[in-house]
Amino acid sequence: MAEKKRILSGMRPTGRLHLGNLHGALENWVKLQDQYECFYFVADWHALTTDYASPGNIRENTREMVLDWLSAGLDPERSTIFIQSDIKEHAELYLLLGMITPVTWLERNPTYKEQQQQIEQKDLGNFGFLGYPVLQAADIIIYRAHGVPVGKDQLPHVELTREIARRFNYLYKSEIFPEPDCLLTEAPVLPGLDGRKMSKSYGNCIFITDSEKEIAEKISRMMTDPQRIRRNDPGNPEVSPVFAYHKLYSSPSEIEEIAHGCRTAGIGCVECKKILTRNVVSKLAPMRERRLKFESDLEGLNEVIAAGNARAAREAAATMELVRRAIGIR
Amino acid sequence: MAEKKRILSGMRPTGRLHLGNLHGALENWVKLQDQYECFYFVADWHALTTDYASPGNIRENTREMVLDWLSAGLDPERSTIFIQSDIKEHAELYLLLGMITPVTWLERNPTYKEQQQQIEQKDLGNFGFLGYPVLQAADIIIYRAHGVPVGKDQLPHVELTREIARRFNYLYKSEIFPEPDCLLTEAPVLPGLDGRKMSKSYGNCIFITDSEKEIAEKISRMMTDPQRIRRNDPGNPEVSPVFAYHKLYSSPSEIEEIAHGCRTAGIGCVECKKILTRNVVSKLAPMRERRLKFESDLEGLNEVIAAGNARAAREAAATMELVRRAIGIR
Repeated sequence: MAEKKRILSGMRPTGRLHLGNLHGALENWVKLQDQYECFYFVADWHALTTDYASPGNIRENTREMVLDWLSAGLDPERSTIFIQSDIKEHAELYLLLGMITPVTWLERNPTYKEQQQQIEQKDLGNFGFLGYPVLQAADIIIYRAHGVPVGKDQLPHVELTREIARRFNYLYKSEIFPEPDCLLTEAPVLPGLDGRKMSKSYGNCIFITDSEKEIAEKISRMMTDPQRIRRNDPGNPEVSPVFAYHKLYSSPSEIEEIAHGCRTAGIGCVECKKILTRNVVSKLAPMRERRLKFESDLEGLNEVIAAGNARAAREAAATMELVRRAIGIR
Repeated sequence: MAEKKRILSGMRPTGRLHLGNLHGALENWVKLQDQYECFYFVADWHALTTDYASPGNIRENTREMVLDWLSAGLDPERSTIFIQSDIKEHAELYLLLGMITPVTWLERNPTYKEQQQQIEQKDLGNFGFLGYPVLQAADIIIYRAHGVPVGKDQLPHVELTREIARRFNYLYKSEIFPEPDCLLTEAPVLPGLDGRKMSKSYGNCIFITDSEKEIAEKISRMMTDPQRIRRNDPGNPEVSPVFAYHKLYSSPSEIEEIAHGCRTAGIGCVECKKILTRNVVSKLAPMRERRLKFESDLEGLNEVIAAGNARAAREAAATMELVRRAIGIR
């Protein structure tokens, strides 16, 4: 049997995950388990690159997020689930890769200037923010990952990782680091309750772990086609966030029926939302059940993390032995 | 008994040390042991900030340098002697301090632009070189050192360390880090054999561990007053590197005699150098003896380093526990 290729991906610890996270990344992570040897990690050090001034409760957010990972179907028997800051080797490799990374490569990173301009309420002129692609490179290549599942916006970072890996191999005449490939994730765009991007800071999220009652309540106040004011006005499903959800949660025949009913005023928004609620609730039910199981066994959760950390640490330590020897520092 | 204040200093692993190193720093380190609790470390990661492209044999250079430290009188019973790269917590704290350090503070560092301009044969536009004062800050404050023995050129770095420590304490409402003071070292300037600064790259060094024969040979070809061409020309001792050595190695009466003899052509350069050779050899003799002892017991040397590392690791780990808790990452 051919060995599975290894992939790696991480998320910043934002606490409970919403459906945007689920469909944008997590669902894909779950699928990738069949095909790849997966390393998934909580990028808690990365959270500090932008939130150093008010980091919030990183530990609590980490716990909540890993619970959601497991609820969504990440399988600790197949995937290595670990916490970045528990594997100190990431910091060591970050330091060493920083030595060979030109500052100009980092200044050229499109996200760097962009975020500095967009996120006005935070001062992002810090050294750590400039260097986060170096840390990301360390995260990836320390496990000698072959691929990274990413969205389009992350492509320049992976390209930088490839350049850094190549430069290391060249300078120290080594073949330690493979250049990781991008596994582009085709993520469906799921709007928030108000039609904007789903985001905690907008308060427009449905969370994976919301109760049936919470889901029903949130969907009931979701935005629909703003042009459809009265029950017997015809509507345009394509501009309604509710319909975007149907596309993900309802059966093909339901979707067709609802689209037609909306356009002909054959179905009202209340009815349409009831169908959606039922389908969302039933799709999330197994996740909620798994969540309850893990929540009642926090020791089990700690064991999952400890085992993942141990596995990751073993791999990282082995790589660092090679790295130190290649540089000649040991 | 009041507890001794703690100081910390490091040297890059350049291999065998020369008399410039001895009088410029090491001699002072030995003295400081009486007054302070001393932490002395091999700054091997720092060597990579400028020499990443050809690091040479860092491990061998580390061993040679620590042997010289012990030969010169560093006492492992009183001082904690350790290797930076063996204490991974330095890398972790470097990463965390980088998050709160503005890039502008680093660009303003006078050494940064200066060295980039002066050292033309190396590309110092790397991220690690920009950030080396952050690493230096981590080195110092991870041991919560009260003071740092430094030369004048290092004052801006220690000031930056103080600013970073202050910023950490402020942002995370902590009192973890004292702001370290500078212990300014009044180092006598000892020229090399050719009158320029003593430096390995100039090939003008006398090494602490040179044999009697090597010392005699090197001193015999030392530069003297270039205006004194014939034996019976009077000379000016103040422009002769040999006389600079006499000031450090000879007795007050010898110094006076030689200065007078030089000015009156009463003593020739050959004679003058013979006296110096005798005095240098006898001053270095106890160091050479200690060196021979340690060289014949490399296991003992490894034990000294292992014990120092263990001591440093304990201190660094304790600080990092506080740091992680203050940030809220644990």
